[in-house]
Amino acid sequence: MSLIAEKTTPFKLCGRENNQEKTVIEFGKTSIGGNELAIMAGPCAVESEAQLLEIAGYLKKTGVSILRGGAYKPRTSPYSFQGLEREGLQLLNRIRKATGLLVVTEVLDQHTISEVAENCDILQVGSRNMQNYSLLRELGRLKKPVLLKRGMSATIEEWLMAAEYIMSGGNNEVILCERGIRTFETYTRNTLDLSAVPLLKELSHLPVIVDPSHATGKYSLVPAMCKAAIMAGADGLIVEVHPCPSEALSDGAQSLLPCKFSNLVRELRDVAALAGKTI
Amino acid sequence: MSLIAEKTTPFKLCGRENNQEKTVIEFGKTSIGGNELAIMAGPCAVESEAQLLEIAGYLKKTGVSILRGGAYKPRTSPYSFQGLEREGLQLLNRIRKATGLLVVTEVLDQHTISEVAENCDILQVGSRNMQNYSLLRELGRLKKPVLLKRGMSATIEEWLMAAEYIMSGGNNEVILCERGIRTFETYTRNTLDLSAVPLLKELSHLPVIVDPSHATGKYSLVPAMCKAAIMAGADGLIVEVHPCPSEALSDGAQSLLPCKFSNLVRELRDVAALAGKTI
Amino acid sequence: MSLIAEKTTPFKLCGRENNQEKTVIEFGKTSIGGNELAIMAGPCAVESEAQLLEIAGYLKKTGVSILRGGAYKPRTSPYSFQGLEREGLQLLNRIRKATGLLVVTEVLDQHTISEVAENCDILQVGSRNMQNYSLLRELGRLKKPVLLKRGMSATIEEWLMAAEYIMSGGNNEVILCERGIRTFETYTRNTLDLSAVPLLKELSHLPVIVDPSHATGKYSLVPAMCKAAIMAGADGLIVEVHPCPSEALSDGAQSLLPCKFSNLVRELRDVAALAGKTI
Amino acid sequence: MSLIAEKTTPFKLCGRENNQEKTVIEFGKTSIGGNELAIMAGPCAVESEAQLLEIAGYLKKTGVSILRGGAYKPRTSPYSFQGLEREGLQLLNRIRKATGLLVVTEVLDQHTISEVAENCDILQVGSRNMQNYSLLRELGRLKKPVLLKRGMSATIEEWLMAAEYIMSGGNNEVILCERGIRTFETYTRNTLDLSAVPLLKELSHLPVIVDPSHATGKYSLVPAMCKAAIMAGADGLIVEVHPCPSEALSDGAQSLLPCKFSNLVRELRDVAALAGKTI
Repeated sequence: MSLIAEKTTPFKLCGRENNQEKTVIEFGKTSIGGNELAIMAGPCAVESEAQLLEIAGYLKKTGVSILRGGAYKPRTSPYSFQGLEREGLQLLNRIRKATGLLVVTEVLDQHTISEVAENCDILQVGSRNMQNYSLLRELGRLKKPVLLKRGMSATIEEWLMAAEYIMSGGNNEVILCERGIRTFETYTRNTLDLSAVPLLKELSHLPVIVDPSHATGKYSLVPAMCKAAIMAGADGLIVEVHPCPSEALSDGAQSLLPCKFSNLVRELRDVAALAGKTI
Repeated sequence: MSLIAEKTTPFKLCGRENNQEKTVIEFGKTSIGGNELAIMAGPCAVESEAQLLEIAGYLKKTGVSILRGGAYKPRTSPYSFQGLEREGLQLLNRIRKATGLLVVTEVLDQHTISEVAENCDILQVGSRNMQNYSLLRELGRLKKPVLLKRGMSATIEEWLMAAEYIMSGGNNEVILCERGIRTFETYTRNTLDLSAVPLLKELSHLPVIVDPSHATGKYSLVPAMCKAAIMAGADGLIVEVHPCPSEALSDGAQSLLPCKFSNLVRELRDVAALAGKTI
Repeated sequence: MSLIAEKTTPFKLCGRENNQEKTVIEFGKTSIGGNELAIMAGPCAVESEAQLLEIAGYLKKTGVSILRGGAYKPRTSPYSFQGLEREGLQLLNRIRKATGLLVVTEVLDQHTISEVAENCDILQVGSRNMQNYSLLRELGRLKKPVLLKRGMSATIEEWLMAAEYIMSGGNNEVILCERGIRTFETYTRNTLDLSAVPLLKELSHLPVIVDPSHATGKYSLVPAMCKAAIMAGADGLIVEVHPCPSEALSDGAQSLLPCKFSNLVRELRDVAALAGKTI
Repeated sequence: MSLIAEKTTPFKLCGRENNQEKTVIEFGKTSIGGNELAIMAGPCAVESEAQLLEIAGYLKKTGVSILRGGAYKPRTSPYSFQGLEREGLQLLNRIRKATGLLVVTEVLDQHTISEVAENCDILQVGSRNMQNYSLLRELGRLKKPVLLKRGMSATIEEWLMAAEYIMSGGNNEVILCERGIRTFETYTRNTLDLSAVPLLKELSHLPVIVDPSHATGKYSLVPAMCKAAIMAGADGLIVEVHPCPSEALSDGAQSLLPCKFSNLVRELRDVAALAGKTI
């Protein structure tokens, strides 16, 4: 019954069978999916220019080249902070121009695709939208990379099929992001499925990155899971960093302080080297 | 951490605390959420005028007043049949006008909301879109009832919060539809969570219906689960019926033949009566 | 890969294919698996003779003929109350002889099988022991019925195979008990899988009963789920009843007061009648 | 409601709070939980003396000092191969004496504890028995280390409480083994929960090892997950190795060939070194 069981691969575009060469996404000085380990870091939500500037400064010093931050935030409750929206996008763009950092930020719907695309380098599709096929199809017509997070209870097959929706529109620059799946375990926010990394590498030529912050929901587990993700074969990491986690407007409990993050990146250089990658 | 644990209810609009009276959605001769048990039936996908007419005839004879059928079909693979789309909507509308049946059909994205709304009586939000908040917000501005399916792994809290997104826009006519959650069990397509029905009745004043077809994925289990759903307190059922399940373009294995469906409805009258409802 | 998919049934003894006639377990005046709906009720744990006598009185008045109560209690923590053990068994036996009620109680290990068997009418295997094959094999040599609870995350196939372990030893009197499976949902203690009932009825000839108390963990949901279970085709129910739930040594939150239980049984008579069964 | 949320730790014996020093289990030349990375390898089931001798030879050459192999095999079906039982134990013991390798093997029930204990160095409790409290209590009276596998859907809290059952009997030598949890994903056999490793290290002083073979069910994923496990902080690995996986009596699909295993161990030395451990 499973498509995976079929003799001919159902993954016409994202599958290994028809495309042996792995996808490397180039951004001038840096790239994702090649020999470099991509690190994306920043706050869950963009909160202010001062916040972004502070974090951007740390990233530059640490040698990290991709800033993450949400301007549009999908929240379980309509009464929670929904992000700075357009203002947040503009802030991201100003920082991006001022610092030369690349920016990845979430796109929530079809109406705001072009606005989001103009202000960032990589558009993120969140877990809740992994099977929002109308959104995926429109992202397939863009000429910008898409970071596709795994749905909360998406199978590997459904996830690759979501990538297929984007690629079948002509956009081949899809980055898969494992961010934990929903299980019975409540001690961690989700269960990080690291075995998905080598499995995706077998099935697909797309880059795979890992989000240990959302997966575990606990900052103290993030360093170990970053290292484990690299050894599992990940092409990159996306990590939440906040100058004052206890005052973060969202997801403080899983955010690292900038100084801890800098120390972590130093440790990750050796791990990446062992995995044949550079930071 | 759970919002449910908070003293003040997080469900400002859909919660019982602030709105003791249960929501009854009126459609001229029929209603959902009151003393009537609502039955929605029809094919997974609209395939042709002949197919719809045949099923509509059975529904009329059986005394069922709501036709279901998908014109826009969200499919795991971009290469699967995606529905007849606009043509399917127009077919539904013709049948609706010709027969007086009410029509419920899925809306997939913001672009097609008005088109879908013009051709049906109830707009369905599918599991994959339960947390597509941009879609929910726009449905909140409509003056048509919305049938909100539970996400594949949505908690009760997330589901009610999704209803809250719609209601906070001004549209109070939300119908909750339990359609099975994703678990480890593979013998059934999903695990029908019938305990969600009395639980939702405690927490919320919104009508709750049950979809045993998608939940079980097996037509032979549908009759028993229809009866169980009624006794669990459901306000209605949504059942897949197809004149020739083995040739259905989607979900044949879980569709009842029209004659079996008619027999089932006869049996359900007694069950509904025992639960204090009429069909 | 699944055994269920194989052409020849893997369920040699418990399967329908080789044994079309359904198993009815006879106990003198009452039976399980036939036209009677079996109701088992009582406290989670046997706490005292007074407690048992009070509940037994209610059961007699209500027309319920099977008393449940744990003497050996498997508890997550070794520091929690573990049951009255041998003393609890003896209490159960005294009540059983004094009142004529049948008794079902849990057996935890091989060492105590004969002791438990002497003091009760049905031996219960709990969820944690569903795949304790050594225990199952020894129960297969007994001449007493075994109530086999589904494991917390056992598939239907694994569960029937556990029944097969008992039956392959010569004991054909196995009663299957659905008690909820472990899922991501935390509002209910477990997720009651009522679709397992008609599914088991298709696959097997064994009686199937339902435990809505452990499944939901909330006494307010128990009445609705009892009714739903009957309409789903269950052969019986096992319900927690306690004279003072707030002081129960275990599982108070899911226990019904005796008076509420009596009212419930009255309502269940009509539901059972509609399902073709008597109470 | 969760014990973990309580102010005072519920993990009296296995918890960090009362025992800051980490547990190191000594076996003459080798140890588990200290600076050495423990590697346990061998077939799922003991099949013959020739098989064991061949694998033992490879282990010796590779510098691995612990042989795994099941004599008593818990199988879903009573009709599947159940292991060589006593003969298997004796074979293990002969190889152990002849080679000096340590042996870890599963104990299935109370009756065979002393027999198993006499023939091995570490007794394994399988997933199905993680909450077989009678078995755990008796293992608590032994003077031999116990390898406690996580139950298929056991929470971290339940798992540590199972360790507490053993330790409260006086046996402090418990090794925790993460072996994947049951989720909706069917492409891998289970979902390896590597975040459990650093989490257990925060909560407990016990050694933690990882079983990537059972977790993934696919030999091709084992090398990457071994490396990831080490970087996540694991104290050891347990890996299935079989001279001819396609003819294995159980679990062939997840077994490595001896030559591949030797290569893997070579690669793991560098990973272990980076994690501050030796092989």
